[in-house]
Amino acid sequence: MSTFQHIKPAGKAQFKDRHTTKAAELLTPYTEGSKGDVAIIGAPLSKPSISHSGASFAPDVIRRCLNSFTTYNIEEETDISSRKIIDFGDITMHPTSIEDCHQRIYQSTKEVAQAQAAPLTIILGGDHSITTSTVKAIKETKGTVGIIQLDAHHDLRNTEDGGPTNGTPFRRLIEEGHLKGEHLIQIGIRNYANAKAYHDYAIENGVTVYTMKDVRQRAIAELIQSALSQLESKVDTIYLSVDMDVLDQAYAPGCPAIGPGGMDPDTLAEAVQQAIKHPKVQTMDIVEIDPTLDTRDMTSRIASLLIINSLVK
Amino acid sequence: MSTFQHIKPAGKAQFKDRHTTKAAELLTPYTEGSKGDVAIIGAPLSKPSISHSGASFAPDVIRRCLNSFTTYNIEEETDISSRKIIDFGDITMHPTSIEDCHQRIYQSTKEVAQAQAAPLTIILGGDHSITTSTVKAIKETKGTVGIIQLDAHHDLRNTEDGGPTNGTPFRRLIEEGHLKGEHLIQIGIRNYANAKAYHDYAIENGVTVYTMKDVRQRAIAELIQSALSQLESKVDTIYLSVDMDVLDQAYAPGCPAIGPGGMDPDTLAEAVQQAIKHPKVQTMDIVEIDPTLDTRDMTSRIASLLIINSLVK
Amino acid sequence: MSTFQHIKPAGKAQFKDRHTTKAAELLTPYTEGSKGDVAIIGAPLSKPSISHSGASFAPDVIRRCLNSFTTYNIEEETDISSRKIIDFGDITMHPTSIEDCHQRIYQSTKEVAQAQAAPLTIILGGDHSITTSTVKAIKETKGTVGIIQLDAHHDLRNTEDGGPTNGTPFRRLIEEGHLKGEHLIQIGIRNYANAKAYHDYAIENGVTVYTMKDVRQRAIAELIQSALSQLESKVDTIYLSVDMDVLDQAYAPGCPAIGPGGMDPDTLAEAVQQAIKHPKVQTMDIVEIDPTLDTRDMTSRIASLLIINSLVK
Amino acid sequence: MSTFQHIKPAGKAQFKDRHTTKAAELLTPYTEGSKGDVAIIGAPLSKPSISHSGASFAPDVIRRCLNSFTTYNIEEETDISSRKIIDFGDITMHPTSIEDCHQRIYQSTKEVAQAQAAPLTIILGGDHSITTSTVKAIKETKGTVGIIQLDAHHDLRNTEDGGPTNGTPFRRLIEEGHLKGEHLIQIGIRNYANAKAYHDYAIENGVTVYTMKDVRQRAIAELIQSALSQLESKVDTIYLSVDMDVLDQAYAPGCPAIGPGGMDPDTLAEAVQQAIKHPKVQTMDIVEIDPTLDTRDMTSRIASLLIINSLVK
Amino acid sequence: MSTFQHIKPAGKAQFKDRHTTKAAELLTPYTEGSKGDVAIIGAPLSKPSISHSGASFAPDVIRRCLNSFTTYNIEEETDISSRKIIDFGDITMHPTSIEDCHQRIYQSTKEVAQAQAAPLTIILGGDHSITTSTVKAIKETKGTVGIIQLDAHHDLRNTEDGGPTNGTPFRRLIEEGHLKGEHLIQIGIRNYANAKAYHDYAIENGVTVYTMKDVRQRAIAELIQSALSQLESKVDTIYLSVDMDVLDQAYAPGCPAIGPGGMDPDTLAEAVQQAIKHPKVQTMDIVEIDPTLDTRDMTSRIASLLIINSLVK
Amino acid sequence: MSTFQHIKPAGKAQFKDRHTTKAAELLTPYTEGSKGDVAIIGAPLSKPSISHSGASFAPDVIRRCLNSFTTYNIEEETDISSRKIIDFGDITMHPTSIEDCHQRIYQSTKEVAQAQAAPLTIILGGDHSITTSTVKAIKETKGTVGIIQLDAHHDLRNTEDGGPTNGTPFRRLIEEGHLKGEHLIQIGIRNYANAKAYHDYAIENGVTVYTMKDVRQRAIAELIQSALSQLESKVDTIYLSVDMDVLDQAYAPGCPAIGPGGMDPDTLAEAVQQAIKHPKVQTMDIVEIDPTLDTRDMTSRIASLLIINSLVK
Ligand SMILES: [Ca+2]
Ligand SMILES: [Ca+2]
Ligand SMILES: [Ca+2]
Ligand SMILES: [Ca+2]
Ligand SMILES: [Ca+2]
Ligand SMILES: [Ca+2]
Ligand SMILES: [Ca+2]
Ligand SMILES: [Ca+2]
Ligand SMILES: [Ca+2]
Ligand SMILES: [Ca+2]
Ligand SMILES: [Ca+2]
Ligand SMILES: [Ca+2]
Repeated sequence: MSTFQHIKPAGKAQFKDRHTTKAAELLTPYTEGSKGDVAIIGAPLSKPSISHSGASFAPDVIRRCLNSFTTYNIEEETDISSRKIIDFGDITMHPTSIEDCHQRIYQSTKEVAQAQAAPLTIILGGDHSITTSTVKAIKETKGTVGIIQLDAHHDLRNTEDGGPTNGTPFRRLIEEGHLKGEHLIQIGIRNYANAKAYHDYAIENGVTVYTMKDVRQRAIAELIQSALSQLESKVDTIYLSVDMDVLDQAYAPGCPAIGPGGMDPDTLAEAVQQAIKHPKVQTMDIVEIDPTLDTRDMTSRIASLLIINSLVK
Repeated sequence: MSTFQHIKPAGKAQFKDRHTTKAAELLTPYTEGSKGDVAIIGAPLSKPSISHSGASFAPDVIRRCLNSFTTYNIEEETDISSRKIIDFGDITMHPTSIEDCHQRIYQSTKEVAQAQAAPLTIILGGDHSITTSTVKAIKETKGTVGIIQLDAHHDLRNTEDGGPTNGTPFRRLIEEGHLKGEHLIQIGIRNYANAKAYHDYAIENGVTVYTMKDVRQRAIAELIQSALSQLESKVDTIYLSVDMDVLDQAYAPGCPAIGPGGMDPDTLAEAVQQAIKHPKVQTMDIVEIDPTLDTRDMTSRIASLLIINSLVK
Repeated sequence: MSTFQHIKPAGKAQFKDRHTTKAAELLTPYTEGSKGDVAIIGAPLSKPSISHSGASFAPDVIRRCLNSFTTYNIEEETDISSRKIIDFGDITMHPTSIEDCHQRIYQSTKEVAQAQAAPLTIILGGDHSITTSTVKAIKETKGTVGIIQLDAHHDLRNTEDGGPTNGTPFRRLIEEGHLKGEHLIQIGIRNYANAKAYHDYAIENGVTVYTMKDVRQRAIAELIQSALSQLESKVDTIYLSVDMDVLDQAYAPGCPAIGPGGMDPDTLAEAVQQAIKHPKVQTMDIVEIDPTLDTRDMTSRIASLLIINSLVK
Repeated sequence: MSTFQHIKPAGKAQFKDRHTTKAAELLTPYTEGSKGDVAIIGAPLSKPSISHSGASFAPDVIRRCLNSFTTYNIEEETDISSRKIIDFGDITMHPTSIEDCHQRIYQSTKEVAQAQAAPLTIILGGDHSITTSTVKAIKETKGTVGIIQLDAHHDLRNTEDGGPTNGTPFRRLIEEGHLKGEHLIQIGIRNYANAKAYHDYAIENGVTVYTMKDVRQRAIAELIQSALSQLESKVDTIYLSVDMDVLDQAYAPGCPAIGPGGMDPDTLAEAVQQAIKHPKVQTMDIVEIDPTLDTRDMTSRIASLLIINSLVK
Repeated sequence: MSTFQHIKPAGKAQFKDRHTTKAAELLTPYTEGSKGDVAIIGAPLSKPSISHSGASFAPDVIRRCLNSFTTYNIEEETDISSRKIIDFGDITMHPTSIEDCHQRIYQSTKEVAQAQAAPLTIILGGDHSITTSTVKAIKETKGTVGIIQLDAHHDLRNTEDGGPTNGTPFRRLIEEGHLKGEHLIQIGIRNYANAKAYHDYAIENGVTVYTMKDVRQRAIAELIQSALSQLESKVDTIYLSVDMDVLDQAYAPGCPAIGPGGMDPDTLAEAVQQAIKHPKVQTMDIVEIDPTLDTRDMTSRIASLLIINSLVK
Repeated sequence: MSTFQHIKPAGKAQFKDRHTTKAAELLTPYTEGSKGDVAIIGAPLSKPSISHSGASFAPDVIRRCLNSFTTYNIEEETDISSRKIIDFGDITMHPTSIEDCHQRIYQSTKEVAQAQAAPLTIILGGDHSITTSTVKAIKETKGTVGIIQLDAHHDLRNTEDGGPTNGTPFRRLIEEGHLKGEHLIQIGIRNYANAKAYHDYAIENGVTVYTMKDVRQRAIAELIQSALSQLESKVDTIYLSVDMDVLDQAYAPGCPAIGPGGMDPDTLAEAVQQAIKHPKVQTMDIVEIDPTLDTRDMTSRIASLLIINSLVK
């Protein structure tokens, strides 16, 4: 096609300013041996969700929203145009076997972790059910895992009632022996968003719980610092799990379980920024965005910014 | 609450004209021994769908759309206000085990069939994957089953690639020995909507296939008559499976797999009316409506009308 | 239906976690003599609104949004699963006589107040026109009424121009002698949202007016405290009237009269929480939510949270 | 403003092709003594509707949709650019007294009729409740009225249950003595859209009822011809009442009471065209369009075309 | 990435049935010397439109809608899975120089025509302004051009008032000497959709005009046959220009200039099918689809079907 | 029409409270010699935008949103009902020549400036490309111009790649010699929203850049004061350019280039209020609102409030 002056491949014909690099241009499809600053992989699974969810569409939309950002951080006067986001692509899902889907996520996360393509790997959900699979894979690859979970919900529901839903990932990790309760720190837990039984379960299992009241009353930096300090000496690797519904409904209209009383995006960005600077934070997920419910991709756009921020780690 | 003149229970405070019976008022919750003219049961399952589907919301919306209709058929000058629709309610679904969901549909359909509450039972999907379970239950209750399927698609896909999806119900019935190919008659199959391999499979297995060309060129009444004649002496009971995507996208905007070139609603209504007059047509399903994609519940409203029509069988 | 293992009545087939009580489960239909912690009644009336309004749909949606919350307040470590919300249902409305509608609201509120089913009754509008009727009923039942009104608008318009609209409830109360101006305290009044003539009317009649500037510059707790102190010794009962348009348009996109410059939901929740702790605050209304204009029921969800909050009074 | 080359008054800066007259340009505000080919007046009232309706927005939108059409009828090779639509404007409505609204419509229609500005006056609803007022005004101005009603519904409900709603206009006319049953001809009445009691009432009162079955089986021209023949010798003037819900939901998505099984727009246009050619057809209304529910103003655009068609009467 | 069992490149992770070829899989990016059955190229330009238009998004959406279709034509029992659609990609557009955009379309169409990649080239608009550029390019490549235009509008507006808009393409072709009036045949021209002046212009210049009345009264096949007969001996090549607004608004809700009274999709498909079977019909465009206005991509899906149909030419 | 009691001209029949003046009533169409407090003119141009934009619809919507506000500022106890907004109307645009459009904006702004109708003129975009034309006109009328730009973006892109787009207005002003870099002060510039090359260009040309970090860390009043101090002695007139995308996406969902991390509306209002109090601030624009993307006109409503605020300058 190179011989035609004004024709570009389908879908590539958008305006290009010669001096501007869009963050989406940092995406580099993985090939064997690729190395980059951050690696991403999509886990487009939402059938395990308790309520109807189109979170399986999120990896595509989050990637596309990288086109909303350039590579220049003016506040730090840092240009990240030479950073590389290794894109492993998306995990294929089985249409009717959720068990098989979780198994594929486990296996693929393991393969991605073993590829060691970047110091930080970001898994794009999908719903929160994926985290049991990804953490298990990380544990088998990197050793004992500590988790910092940003979420309105405990996700410690019993599994008898619904199996491996998006309400149970951390319960399953604890019960299957992949995670110790004291290695789990939950931040942003919200009023009237969880059953007492699961708060009790958290406490009994040594889980650290910071509610939104803690977030409002203490600096987020202090909570994250406290979490990192608590985990760094006890675990081999730290996993940051970002459920976007930790944000208030006004800022994240695209989560299935929206509600008032949540965080604002600056607080979330600060939390993530600070956490991933720690060398033991090597894996992160971003889950629970349903693009079919979102307003102008606002929630996905925040997710994209979290990815970009991670490049100035 | 009866002592308060102007207060009604939550959700019941709508305007009531003393002379008007809404079709929704014909709904009577099943209790043991109930008898009625038609029985309905919801199978709110759409996780097996190949593409994202909210068809699990359809039973609720179809019931609600019964409020859009009265009980008076002016064209036949027939009032059906004394007919009864026995409502068995909805089958509960397991959040993460699709196999379990299908098993529950099978078991519940069998229980409903055994209850013999009405000469015609209508199962409200849900996606088309439910039909393997329902037909198997009917076969075990009523004997050899013949099927008249109104659909744009064969639904005869191989099961290796995705398991019991909404693309495979009739293939599974044939392969599991619950249905003979020659007892399956498909009407409304559309151009560029199926793979050649599955048309070949249909032919090889003796399935009768009427395409939209047949519908356009011959009277629908003739096709239905031909289908009934072909089946009536060979089977014990006839199952009518109505995939709403047999309709054109302009008339049924709420199906996941919409497209141009389909039937109009009058033709569909005529087909259903004629079929259910046959005494061997004792079970029917209405599937593949996703209310989250519909325009003003148009597709569900047509489904509701099919139910009402069945009362003047 | 109890004999069928996997079937539930229509609309009840959703997922149930055995340890989780949804706030909606606290709703208990009123029967004679019922006692609970809070009572609610719907007043689904919006035809008196000056502009087109679907606020009549709000009581249903607010009740449904109670499903978005559990009964556990993690910040206070309080489980409210044993509290009861007595649901009186909805007041039926006359399709064409607004006078009759207001009369029914008056009569029904009186009956509900006399039933003494709970220490706090919450009336779910509907538009703000309902408040003349409800306050009149409360006055006749409980004695002199003081009102704390959270609103962007005075609602003190003249009645010559439009009659008993949603712009006139407090004017009508004052002019009909049911309310003294000095017993009305307005909080959240906004710039360019009212005519000077009505501010003048407020001042002339002794109404206390706190604008959004007051809200921004002083703690909301101080304003509420001041209002309670001012009223408690002078009136027999205090009525809290919550017009949701006191919130900023970014947080409450579902009000007919949205605008910038309003309160955030935390401030509103704090105001309501503090007010209803006062023993004389025995009645409350929540008005001016039009679900047909809302984004993902955000405004109704905040209203539901206000109801839940009232249970930890 | 004339001194500025490229500035036009607010809202008038759209593209203008020198050879094209838009139908909206035929609108001429009425001033005393104005004469034109058709007169229009808006009756923006929808509060009497049984269900929530924004039909009060229709007159504005129908006028605006006149911009979608030019003045050239290529099929008849007729240019109507010199025809005039006298626009009387809109009747102001009282916010809370529906009785007052109906009275204003009555009085204004009478004034408009007396102004004799055009051989045909078209009243733009609003909901169908307006027709009692308009017909009464026409009767007092022009004598005995016959009505041809294009509608899915009889609109003959009892008035005890809801007063002068959009379900009762023709009942009220008959009961108040303004209309004889035998002077009412209903076309397009639909299955399951009315109570038997009201069909009985129609028959008992001599009303002529043509159902959609009649429309499907006989040419619409024949039905209209039959209606005109039946009325022309018995009445002084004929009123054509067009409830847009006579159309199928696929063509008129903007009516409150949409449903399948209705007319297509060509049939409706033919019916209207033929009727208004009769010299006794001097008044027409177009009702029951709710622009807040419509898809891309499709229903209002059809209404606009009916107005334009009337200019080649 | 081949070493990972369950990972596919971003955006490719959808379900794949081994026996099904989607029409989108027939798309083959052009490389020098490529040969196929049909060639497509996108001209994503809509800034010249008289009214606001997002038709520039259509090429992407039409390609994506090829995923809604398989390669099997069951009515003809023909599998087109071995046909190839050579995809030249999209022409890049200048953000602010419409003249430059038109020049790029001209140059690129010429290059594509010279590449002789397929017997039929389909240009995907964009708005109708592109057709002046494409036809000029075709004329310079293939000789005298005849045009069959399916459109509600003449598109013969004067150019003084707005320049090379989407209202002028055929006028510019005639005035610039690239097209003789008698070589232009317009089908589907609609009432009240054009100025008389432009019908006059058409007649004066020998343009053949078939209105919707002609379409309704004569078989479309006869009109197309007549057009082909009229052109085949006089021109070297025939260009088929399909403005999707020739369809009725109920079927093509995504065109900027929608209206009632248009064709249905079966008629359009038949017209296109028949035309492109003629060996002189070597170029076709599909224009005036604005995906931002469409309902569930219905209009683009019909466009995709026209492309697929062309493969069984 | 005055003789009819209850009829008003089309579009004027809304409810009117005798004591309430809506801000929209302050709009007075310009006639020669008109004088007022603020003048407005619409520049409905969005074709130069890099991405698809309907900003050309904004002037109409912003005017209409003036109906959402009264004329009474309760916080300052100031009634502005006697202030006058001189409305010059809208500049007509050429459909296909963007150069011509920019020329018309230049010429019309000059004419408006020369008319000296008010101490402050507000130009309602349209997209930001208009600002080159308007500033050039102001410079030729009032002398050296200083600019305070509230924007997420520099708008200093090179013009080789796209010409006079909405990404280049200030670059063009500098390069064409109409503006010195040191006379440009940018406030609100956001991370990852611009290329490094353009920040470099700003610095090299002496442009003052305040990022969102500056906004977060310093009081906005201080930044504006600093900007005014810097400019007041060096320039003859100050132009305030308000790109609404300086706001966070949660508050301004209607901008084409929305994103997280922006200002809130109170901060923007404070900035504008403070700036326009300075006597040298004589011209202002409000750009980049696309009403087709907005949620309930929220962004336009904020723009309207900025206009109203300017009346208490
Ligand atoms: Ca979670
Ligand atoms: Ca969560
Ligand atoms: Ca199917
Ligand atoms: Ca199907
Ligand atoms: Ca209020
Ligand atoms: Ca208010
Ligand atoms: Ca009616
Ligand atoms: Ca009707
Ligand atoms: Ca055209
Ligand atoms: Ca056209
Ligand atoms: Ca800008
Ligand atoms: Ca900007």
